[in-house]
Amino acid sequence: MLEGYRGKLASLLVSKGIDIGDKIRVRKGNLEVEGILFPSFSKYDDILVIKMDNGYNIGLKIDGDEIYLVCKKSVAENKETKGGEKSRGEVKIISTGGTIVSKIEYETGAVKPALTTEDILEYLPQIREIADIDAEVLFSILSENMKPEYWTKIAEETKRALDEGSKGVVIAHGTDTMTYTASALAFSFSQMTGPVIMVGSQRSSDRPSSDSPINLYSSVLLAKKSPFAEVSVLMHGESSDTYTLAHRAVKTRKMHTSRRDAFQSINDIPLAKVKWKNNEIVMMRNDFRPRGNHNTLDSKFDTRVFLLYYYPGMDPSFLETIRDKVKGIIIAGTGLGHTSEEFEPYFRSMTKDGIFIGMTSQCLFGRVNMNVYTTGRKLQNAGVVPLGDLLPETALVKLMWILAHTNDVEEVRKMMLKNLAGEFNFRHSEQLFPRWYHE
Amino acid sequence: MLEGYRGKLASLLVSKGIDIGDKIRVRKGNLEVEGILFPSFSKYDDILVIKMDNGYNIGLKIDGDEIYLVCKKSVAENKETKGGEKSRGEVKIISTGGTIVSKIEYETGAVKPALTTEDILEYLPQIREIADIDAEVLFSILSENMKPEYWTKIAEETKRALDEGSKGVVIAHGTDTMTYTASALAFSFSQMTGPVIMVGSQRSSDRPSSDSPINLYSSVLLAKKSPFAEVSVLMHGESSDTYTLAHRAVKTRKMHTSRRDAFQSINDIPLAKVKWKNNEIVMMRNDFRPRGNHNTLDSKFDTRVFLLYYYPGMDPSFLETIRDKVKGIIIAGTGLGHTSEEFEPYFRSMTKDGIFIGMTSQCLFGRVNMNVYTTGRKLQNAGVVPLGDLLPETALVKLMWILAHTNDVEEVRKMMLKNLAGEFNFRHSEQLFPRWYHE
Repeated sequence: MLEGYRGKLASLLVSKGIDIGDKIRVRKGNLEVEGILFPSFSKYDDILVIKMDNGYNIGLKIDGDEIYLVCKKSVAENKETKGGEKSRGEVKIISTGGTIVSKIEYETGAVKPALTTEDILEYLPQIREIADIDAEVLFSILSENMKPEYWTKIAEETKRALDEGSKGVVIAHGTDTMTYTASALAFSFSQMTGPVIMVGSQRSSDRPSSDSPINLYSSVLLAKKSPFAEVSVLMHGESSDTYTLAHRAVKTRKMHTSRRDAFQSINDIPLAKVKWKNNEIVMMRNDFRPRGNHNTLDSKFDTRVFLLYYYPGMDPSFLETIRDKVKGIIIAGTGLGHTSEEFEPYFRSMTKDGIFIGMTSQCLFGRVNMNVYTTGRKLQNAGVVPLGDLLPETALVKLMWILAHTNDVEEVRKMMLKNLAGEFNFRHSEQLFPRWYHE
Repeated sequence: MLEGYRGKLASLLVSKGIDIGDKIRVRKGNLEVEGILFPSFSKYDDILVIKMDNGYNIGLKIDGDEIYLVCKKSVAENKETKGGEKSRGEVKIISTGGTIVSKIEYETGAVKPALTTEDILEYLPQIREIADIDAEVLFSILSENMKPEYWTKIAEETKRALDEGSKGVVIAHGTDTMTYTASALAFSFSQMTGPVIMVGSQRSSDRPSSDSPINLYSSVLLAKKSPFAEVSVLMHGESSDTYTLAHRAVKTRKMHTSRRDAFQSINDIPLAKVKWKNNEIVMMRNDFRPRGNHNTLDSKFDTRVFLLYYYPGMDPSFLETIRDKVKGIIIAGTGLGHTSEEFEPYFRSMTKDGIFIGMTSQCLFGRVNMNVYTTGRKLQNAGVVPLGDLLPETALVKLMWILAHTNDVEEVRKMMLKNLAGEFNFRHSEQLFPRWYHE
C-alpha cells in the first residue's frame, strides 16, 4: 500500500515494486539520498518522502525516473531485528496519543492522534538499533483531554513494564498537558528500577521539520542507558537539532505554543543533555535518584482541588461558589505570593474548615516569600501556606496526589512542604533565569 | 531630625550640625565619598547612608571623625530648584504605593508603603536636575490590593496632569499588579500628549541594592524626553545597573518574584532602553505612538469577567457556578489554545447566551492557533475566540474595558481582535523567546 501517494509518482513506485518501508535510493542531480520510503502527507502529487538514516524526513520533488529500490522492507527489517527473534523489550514504549503519534485528518485538515507505536517504529528503524522495543498503544488521545484517572492507568502500565524487566519506559504523550502527567507519575513512584521518559513532539511526524524522530530516538536511548530512575520530560533543547534535554518532571513547563524547544526547566537545571548524534548522555547534575531494585507505586488522585489565578478585580466571594466542592486550593498569586487583602477572611474561614490553601506565584520564576510584605503576613496568618519555588501546575498535581492519601489538613501541609520528587529547589542561581535579547 | 540614626553616630552628626538631606563628605582611608545624607534603616548603630550623585545609596561604617558638612539641605535645594520659583511640573509623579515608596515597618519587620513622593525627591535630588517635578500621593497601597476602580482614578489623575501641560507622567506603583494597571491605562487612553511611565522597584529604597533610584530617575527622564506617548512599564533591564528598559504596557509580564530585571516583554521587544548614566534614551522600535495634541480618555471597566486557568481534571460543570456572574471569560488554555473536549457543550451554551469566551495560552510565549488540532476546531465551533499572542492578563483587562462599553457579543469579539494598544504582535521572530542556560 502506497499511503498518500497519487498519480504519476504512485505509478512509478508500483512499476519499480517499491512499497512504504522499503529502503530506496533517489538521485537528483548531484544529490543522492538513501532511506526508508515514508507515507506522503503532501498535498502535491510529486513529492516523495524519505526517512534518512540520521532520523530526518526529507521531501523530494520527483521529476523523472530517479528512484531505485535498495532492499525490500522485510529484508531491511530482518537485518535489524535479527528476524524471528522475539523482542526482549529492553525499552517499553507506551503510546498515549499526541502529535508525536499524529497525522493529518484529511477531512478537516486538523491533526489527530492516529499512528500506532508500531507505525512509528516502522518509520524510525534506527530506534531498533539502540534497544529492543516493546510497544503498546494505551490511549490515543490528544493530551488536552488527559485526566487524572488516565494518569493512574499510565502509572500502572509503566510499573508493569518495569516489573517485567524493561530497562526504562518511554511514554509518548501530547505536549499540551505532558508536564501535568509527568508530575503525576513523579509523585506516584517512590522507587523505580528505571527511568520514565515522557516524550512528545511539537510538529507532527508528517512534517519535514518534525521533532518527533529525534525526540523519540533520544528518549529510547535514555530509557535504556540513563543512570537516573526518575520521571523526566524529554524534548528538543534548542530550536535546531543539535541536542535534546531531559528535564525533571516536576520542574518543567511548556513555555511556548509551537517552538521545538518549548519545554524548559523552571527554577532548576535539567537532568541530562542527550547528544543523540553520538548516542551520548551528558548528565547535568548528580543529585538524581539512581536505578533501584524495585518499583513502588501509589497512584491515586483526588480532583477536588482548584487552581485560582488571582487578578485585580477578582471578587473574593467567588470562593464561596467553590467552597463545597474543594478540599484544597492552589493560588497562583502575584509577585512574592499575594492576593488582595479582601481574600483574607475567606481564606481564614476555609482553612478553619480544613481546606488546604497553598500559595505559588504567577511570575513562575523565583520563589514566594510571604514574610516581606504586610499582605503576605496576613494571608499566612489566615492559614495560607507559601510553597517556595513550586510551579503552580506542579503544586496542583501534588495536592491532588496528597489529598487522595490523607484528609488531615496538618498532614497535607507537611507533605506539601516535603520534597517528594525534587519539586523544590532550594539553591537558586543567577543562571536559572533565562537571558533576554536586549543587549 | 536624624531619622534612624542612634548612639554615637547620631551624636557625631548633631555635633557637626548635619541633618538628613544635607550634602556631606565622608573620608575613609583613601576613599572620599560626597553625597546627600540619607535616613538609616540599618540595624547597626555605626552605619551612615549616603545617596551619591550617581543615584546609588552607599552604607559606610563610621569608626571615627571622618564626616564633613559640605552644604546644608536648604542651600543644596535652593541651588537646584532656584529657590522660591514655583515648580513648573514638567513631569508629574503620581504615587500609588508599592515598594518604590516603601519602608520597613519596624513592629512586624514587613515592608509597607509609607514614603511620600516628596520624601523620594528628597532622597533623589538628581531627579530635579533633569526635570521640574510636580508630585502627588494618590494612593498608598500595596499593588496586590489594586482594583479596577482605582485604575480609573489613576487614569483621570494622569489625564489631568497631561492636560495641565506635564510633558509626561510617572506613576509609582507596586510591582505585583503593575502590568495589569499599565494595560488598563493603555486601553483607556486613545490619544496622549505625553507618555505614562509606570515605575516600581523590586527592592525597597532602604536597601543598598534598591533598584528604586535608578528606575525612578530613568522614568522621569523618559516622561520628559521620550518621543513616544504610550503607557510603558519601566524597570531594570538586567540584574546589574547598566540600563533600564521601557516595555510596552500590554506586552509586559513580571517573570520573577524578586529579580530587579523581573519585568520582560513577552512576544515583543521593548519600546526603549534607557542608558541612565548618560541621560540617553535608545529607541528599540519605531512603530510607537508619538506625542499628540490632546488626551482622549475613556476609563471604565466591567469586572464581570473570569480568568480560567485550565488543568487536567478540572470539572467542566465548574462553569455553571460562575455562569450567572460573568459577561466574559478568558481561558488560559494549554498549548495552542485548548481545554478538554468536555468543556465544549458548556462553552457552546454560554456563548449562545451572549457570554464572550476568549482563548489564550498558559505557555505565554507564542500564539494560540485553534486550527491545528481537532479540539481547537471544536472549541472554535462552540464560539470560543482565539486571541493570537495576547497574554492572559492583558486579554482579561482588555475584556473588562470592552465589556464596560458594549454588551453586544459580536461587537465584543470584533474589539477583542482589534489591535487597540499594540497588544497583538503579528511578527514574531526567533529573538522573542529567551535563551536558556544549557549550552
